[in-house]
Amino acid sequence: MTDAPMTAQAAATATAGDILSSHLTAQAGAFLRALPLAVGEVGARPGTAAVVPAAGTADLLGTVRRIGGLLHTFGSVFEQAWAQESRTELRWLLNLLALEPGYVRRSARLLGALDSLSGSDPDGTGMLAGHTGAPKARALLDRQLTLARTRAHSSVLQELRSARLHALADRMTLLVGEAPLLEAAGGRAPAVLLPQAAAAVAVLSASAQQLPLRRAATPYGGDGLRRLGAVPAARGAVDADTALAADDAPWARMRILVKRARYALEVCGRTSAELDELDGVLGRHQEAADAAVTVATAARTPRITPATAYVLGVVHADQRLEVEAARYAFGRRWPDLPPGLDGWLDLPAAEGWGHSPAPRTA
Amino acid sequence: MTDAPMTAQAAATATAGDILSSHLTAQAGAFLRALPLAVGEVGARPGTAAVVPAAGTADLLGTVRRIGGLLHTFGSVFEQAWAQESRTELRWLLNLLALEPGYVRRSARLLGALDSLSGSDPDGTGMLAGHTGAPKARALLDRQLTLARTRAHSSVLQELRSARLHALADRMTLLVGEAPLLEAAGGRAPAVLLPQAAAAVAVLSASAQQLPLRRAATPYGGDGLRRLGAVPAARGAVDADTALAADDAPWARMRILVKRARYALEVCGRTSAELDELDGVLGRHQEAADAAVTVATAARTPRITPATAYVLGVVHADQRLEVEAARYAFGRRWPDLPPGLDGWLDLPAAEGWGHSPAPRTA
Repeated sequence: MTDAPMTAQAAATATAGDILSSHLTAQAGAFLRALPLAVGEVGARPGTAAVVPAAGTADLLGTVRRIGGLLHTFGSVFEQAWAQESRTELRWLLNLLALEPGYVRRSARLLGALDSLSGSDPDGTGMLAGHTGAPKARALLDRQLTLARTRAHSSVLQELRSARLHALADRMTLLVGEAPLLEAAGGRAPAVLLPQAAAAVAVLSASAQQLPLRRAATPYGGDGLRRLGAVPAARGAVDADTALAADDAPWARMRILVKRARYALEVCGRTSAELDELDGVLGRHQEAADAAVTVATAARTPRITPATAYVLGVVHADQRLEVEAARYAFGRRWPDLPPGLDGWLDLPAAEGWGHSPAPRTA
Repeated sequence: MTDAPMTAQAAATATAGDILSSHLTAQAGAFLRALPLAVGEVGARPGTAAVVPAAGTADLLGTVRRIGGLLHTFGSVFEQAWAQESRTELRWLLNLLALEPGYVRRSARLLGALDSLSGSDPDGTGMLAGHTGAPKARALLDRQLTLARTRAHSSVLQELRSARLHALADRMTLLVGEAPLLEAAGGRAPAVLLPQAAAAVAVLSASAQQLPLRRAATPYGGDGLRRLGAVPAARGAVDADTALAADDAPWARMRILVKRARYALEVCGRTSAELDELDGVLGRHQEAADAAVTVATAARTPRITPATAYVLGVVHADQRLEVEAARYAFGRRWPDLPPGLDGWLDLPAAEGWGHSPAPRTA
């Protein structure tokens, strides 16, 4: 395994396979280092410990995302069946590992929102200050999220001993230095990889054009609360859950496309602070949208008091407002980006291959 | 009574008293024309008719505000006791007449918000679409606002026959052509009136500097929901109602100052589309803040269902969001204004007195 920088000369004459192998070797190595740490972390803590994800789990999630993204974007140079299987297994691990930290973040987000809305600090009083429903709603959310998290923890614990995970680890071990490449990988790196990275960026741009970006960039338009997008008629009677899910879906898809474009650019030796930032904005969008669903679900708990329900209504609207704020942030930043992205990929073909950066896992 | 335009020559040599008398005569005339219409309108409709304010009431409110503002801003040239008494009586009528139309607008605002939040139009689905609490919350708000409005209607009906209103009408009749001016009113109009109008604008500017305008001009800062301003410590334990009232108060005061500045500029022959617009923005602020209080009160109704309370929580947050949106609109528009306002009052002193515009009542 090597993740030492390639020399400039080697880089200039490198094949696409060299570059991809080098990246996969580095990421698979990072995976294999992070996996036992993550397993140890999950095993060592009870289901209700406060601080996750620990470093091992976070690193593992980062490498899993990067390898999966790389196999997707540059898929045409890999053996198809192998790449497809690998992506399926990586997605399984991602969903498994992301669940518990996701609940921890959601808990922090929602209890933080509630504390902020019901806070009575002289410098930051909230509209629910002193409301009798606030402690009850807090206890309800805390209880439900802790339960969800404990369940997620148990299923991770179980799967970490599974044959499926061992098989994936073996697959990653084999990947170090030995990615199953097709003949196309023998072409010079810029000629093979740049068009595929450009395609990832083009898909991103095209998807962004489908979003209501002009509307999103006008603040306080009510996009998160009142003016949800049209629900396809085939889905039948519109309820709020369906409408919200349909409204959020294209933004969730954008998040995936931004990550893929980020990782594709990394392979081409480019990084983009703008894309990193958009990734963060869409991450906030996702977490606020998910948190809003949790609150709406909690409000349907039988036998809660009206005061509790009232507070949950305020928190639900607050999280939809966060959704709207994230869309605004995205809508404001986006318009400057597509030309910039094209620009990076229009660089003279041999430039930018001068080094294979140390593996990023953030 | 005359509201014919003064000739340019007459205007150039007019005294402050001439200008003020001309304005007061025009407005008092408008008052006396609108009063019987307004009385007829109130008397003719039952307490639950849908469309108020009718034209007579709206005109009457406009003239009452203008006369009161004029007596305040240019108070030094009027007999003190008379001006003070007149303002007190005008404020009494304003509060009396504004109450019922206020409830009608609040009802339209809140039921409209609820319909929008629970709407299931394909093009504008709301986050409460299909929620079982929505019809109940709507019925509750409708019932409480109709009751408040009926009470307001009864007290207007009663007071419209009162000796107090007749005395005020007599006072306005005497005002036509005969405002009780002091000697200071004999000075030339620009020399006397411009400094007083400038003082009204200066008070407006100074008050605006006290508002968190920079924060307000950053969208989605949470100013309406989470980050209410500090409550003076002397008020004891902070509850949400106190905190919200304290947070909204300086904006309500701004609205009064904007109106005073508008009316003072009108007397000086200037109009300002920007101030008219800010007046509208602060009007929306006030109505959203008042509507939010109504929802919070409705949510304390005993024996409502949790679903109803949940919907009221969402609507409450929605109205606080409208408050925040109005502050944003104000914060964005304000910074360009103070120099502009100063500019108008720095015009050569004799200009702009060329005509006394027909009385505005909007």
